Amino acid sequence: MKANLDLPIIEPLQGPQVIATQPLLKTRLFNIEQQSLCFSNGVTADYERLVSKSDGAVLVVPIINDAFVLIREWSAGVGRYELGFPKGKVDPGETWQDAAVRECQEEIGFRPRRLHLLDKVCLAASYMDHHTHLVLAQYLDVSVSDAGDEPEPLQTLQWPIARWPELLAQAEFSEGRAYAALFLTLTHLGKIV
Amino acid sequence: MKANLDLPIIEPLQGPQVIATQPLLKTRLFNIEQQSLCFSNGVTADYERLVSKSDGAVLVVPIINDAFVLIREWSAGVGRYELGFPKGKVDPGETWQDAAVRECQEEIGFRPRRLHLLDKVCLAASYMDHHTHLVLAQYLDVSVSDAGDEPEPLQTLQWPIARWPELLAQAEFSEGRAYAALFLTLTHLGKIV
Repeated sequence: MKANLDLPIIEPLQGPQVIATQPLLKTRLFNIEQQSLCFSNGVTADYERLVSKSDGAVLVVPIINDAFVLIREWSAGVGRYELGFPKGKVDPGETWQDAAVRECQEEIGFRPRRLHLLDKVCLAASYMDHHTHLVLAQYLDVSVSDAGDEPEPLQTLQWPIARWPELLAQAEFSEGRAYAALFLTLTHLGKIV
Repeated sequence: MKANLDLPIIEPLQGPQVIATQPLLKTRLFNIEQQSLCFSNGVTADYERLVSKSDGAVLVVPIINDAFVLIREWSAGVGRYELGFPKGKVDPGETWQDAAVRECQEEIGFRPRRLHLLDKVCLAASYMDHHTHLVLAQYLDVSVSDAGDEPEPLQTLQWPIARWPELLAQAEFSEGRAYAALFLTLTHLGKIV
């Protein structure tokens, strides 16, 4: 039997109505609210959501000499050093391009001359509106490393692109969006088809 | 010049000491605390972190007839329908396998006979400890669809694996961890090398 390669039809759906929105709490970093929704079948339900305070984040895949430039940074969320790509939030008034260049300079001491937006992803669609621009950065010029807001110097290292499977196997390389950025980069560079 | 394909050395690092942990607030879904850390260079810094209330989540990639089985579900975080893989949290007392089978039955009405753990990823290492088991589910038996906790019936659809680039291009398919699961599945099935 020949496989059916047709794509399914994505029909427009009638979303629920927001009946009420109640701010639950704010901290320096987080903003949580509750939404009461009424679905088209009449069912109502309450949802807690984490609302971003910034215009999302950038995650930058810097490439030099056929290698990814990675950082190791203490990551309070998981309570250990995380190996990953430079990243940070898009500051007020910045574009994603501004933020990508700034994070490269602050975190790895390079200034990219070419940026390419690989995609924009969210973290957990059901309870967070946070989104991350995944950005490929190429043609890196050595730059004076701008001071970031890190409590200790970041360790940087170069990982040969061709050895990406071993990078994924590192326990310290663990963010889903970093996996996405890595695979999208390989696809963009024609290394996987 | 031949590219250097050696892997960098990942040296053990002396992490910071936790000086104090202060619960900031709890809601039904979220648990936020502040950690005061002292780094090995003597610098201290405070970090807010979102602490999971459950043993993480499962995201299941169900495959039938060379197609992914996807769901469309209202996602309050992003405020729209999200197209993605079945997922949900691992309930108390459950293994990731239990949760993967349960979510498949509840959300798509299939019971998988083979599960394979593709990887475990986190969402945002710097401020969340939440992790997701990415699980490939194969050999699906039609099952009575167990009642889940959804306010409206989920729409399910089948997407031919070979047409994965068009799936990534869908605006409604947007979670970084779903991208990761898709690419890891393609790698596992030998469809990309």
